[in-house]
Amino acid sequence: MVHETVKLGKNVRLGDHVVIEEHVTIGDDSEIGHHTIIKKNTQIGNRVKIGDLTVLGKGTASNNKMARKPGKGGSPLIIEDDVVIGSGVVMYWDVQLKTGVFVGDLASIRENVTVGRDSIIGRNVMVENHTNIGNRVTIQTGCYITADMKIEDDVFIGPCCSTSNDKYMGMGHREYQGPMIKKGAKIGNNATLLPAVVIGQHAIIGAGAVITKDVPAGKTVVGNPGRVMK
Amino acid sequence: MVHETVKLGKNVRLGDHVVIEEHVTIGDDSEIGHHTIIKKNTQIGNRVKIGDLTVLGKGTASNNKMARKPGKGGSPLIIEDDVVIGSGVVMYWDVQLKTGVFVGDLASIRENVTVGRDSIIGRNVMVENHTNIGNRVTIQTGCYITADMKIEDDVFIGPCCSTSNDKYMGMGHREYQGPMIKKGAKIGNNATLLPAVVIGQHAIIGAGAVITKDVPAGKTVVGNPGRVMK
Amino acid sequence: MVHETVKLGKNVRLGDHVVIEEHVTIGDDSEIGHHTIIKKNTQIGNRVKIGDLTVLGKGTASNNKMARKPGKGGSPLIIEDDVVIGSGVVMYWDVQLKTGVFVGDLASIRENVTVGRDSIIGRNVMVENHTNIGNRVTIQTGCYITADMKIEDDVFIGPCCSTSNDKYMGMGHREYQGPMIKKGAKIGNNATLLPAVVIGQHAIIGAGAVITKDVPAGKTVVGNPGRVMK
Repeated sequence: MVHETVKLGKNVRLGDHVVIEEHVTIGDDSEIGHHTIIKKNTQIGNRVKIGDLTVLGKGTASNNKMARKPGKGGSPLIIEDDVVIGSGVVMYWDVQLKTGVFVGDLASIRENVTVGRDSIIGRNVMVENHTNIGNRVTIQTGCYITADMKIEDDVFIGPCCSTSNDKYMGMGHREYQGPMIKKGAKIGNNATLLPAVVIGQHAIIGAGAVITKDVPAGKTVVGNPGRVMK
Repeated sequence: MVHETVKLGKNVRLGDHVVIEEHVTIGDDSEIGHHTIIKKNTQIGNRVKIGDLTVLGKGTASNNKMARKPGKGGSPLIIEDDVVIGSGVVMYWDVQLKTGVFVGDLASIRENVTVGRDSIIGRNVMVENHTNIGNRVTIQTGCYITADMKIEDDVFIGPCCSTSNDKYMGMGHREYQGPMIKKGAKIGNNATLLPAVVIGQHAIIGAGAVITKDVPAGKTVVGNPGRVMK
Repeated sequence: MVHETVKLGKNVRLGDHVVIEEHVTIGDDSEIGHHTIIKKNTQIGNRVKIGDLTVLGKGTASNNKMARKPGKGGSPLIIEDDVVIGSGVVMYWDVQLKTGVFVGDLASIRENVTVGRDSIIGRNVMVENHTNIGNRVTIQTGCYITADMKIEDDVFIGPCCSTSNDKYMGMGHREYQGPMIKKGAKIGNNATLLPAVVIGQHAIIGAGAVITKDVPAGKTVVGNPGRVMK
């Protein structure tokens, strides 16, 4: 069901049973898969490919227990040219995907997130709100990117890495800060990053390492707790 | 396609292409997203919000190799008032979600599970069968909650934690026991809990810790293997 | 919408709003869930059960930054008799699922993968391309199986295990090699396997262990970094 206010460019291909809500725009030569849902106000560029069974532009939600209530969400989801999005993805409103971004199947990105040019968000990656991801970043399959995090350009994050942003673990102090990963750093698979740690430029984190404090630029850290290799 | 035996309350909003099977009931002021599927006998309360592309009330399945065959599944999925469920969720029959529960996108909960009042099951969390989750529990994004586990009230589990319930790792001894996490305990992100460990009341488990034995009440444990901090 | 070239066996049950593209074949007594999508050329055997909201036979995709471009994908997805596939699954073309395989909900398997007889791919498991999985293998919920990996018969992999295949972490050396797990080995939950490690026959890897080098047959390894237990 395509709402009458939707604006479609030239040569847009729509799959079966798509649902496109009011005031969505889709650029030229873009493809939307079967059973995919595009919520109101979403803006999609040219030559964008969206898979099947995907939701774009979802609003936020909460329950009684959540410390942070969702905002009003005035901003739409903006998907620039040449972006590729997989199947089974859940993407919120107030997200910006810059030109050439790739988002794998079954990934989800919450509100107030920007993903820079040509970056890769792997399959099954979960990105929380209020996080900024630079250009040419690779986040491999199954990573968890917490809220209030900053990932600079050219960072590589291996599969299944985990981050967190609340050192009081739900006690309600509300001083949230995710890790900061500086330009060109590389994180091995299944590494664990604690709240607010800073990973320096071109630092390397070993697979399975647990990072409890800042890592200087250019150093390699391995183990639990993580220690700088000599 | 809404079956003729379905009972809808007042002001229920149904998305496009919903499928609602026989003998489902939905209370007043509830919303069901686009392309969502509600299997037979599911009971949904008042002011419940269900996202898009979600399956509720799925039956169990198995293959030749599985040690535990699924039961007959006589009990329906019961969703109480004011529950919020995301998009892309797969929820089985014989599950009870108490008032005010939140279930994030792409999460899945198997049969014979109860989730207590106002608890949060984060995005992409997988909960296995025969597990009991208390009131006001937070289970953050990407956690794996094994079968035969008990989580008491006010527990906090950080992102990506992993649990297991079979110390013989598939050798077929069939003495399954998941961890027990007692009231108010807090588990850091990407921690690993072995089968049958007991985490005492208000204990704290560090991020990335590997818990191989019981943790006394009120203690903090970090490292691999986990050791009590002095 | 079922394409006119589709061949359905006897007693095939199709859910509501299924989409079946050209030249798909489905054997006798098979079931396809609601809103499920079967892409062109997919071959499905007899007595196969497919859940709801699942995509079968997806083509590959990439963006500018990806080192490995997807192939032409001439080969179809082949699903043999008695296979069971869950809901919310994303399965690519050029995959072979042998007789009796089980694939859990929200799992995804990429192209150029074979899964042997009666093996179990748990819920939310992600399998990358160019990987071979033997017979009677169990891969539990939430595991990440990287590309270029070989898993022999009767292996057991506990929940949330993580593997990787690129020791240069995205620097583009393009010498990819995933782990090899030999016959009958058992891997504990949330273990981390580095690129190209070989886990010997009937070896045991402890929960949370980080495996940085080869493990001899029959040995048990625990810790970070993993060490052989005496």
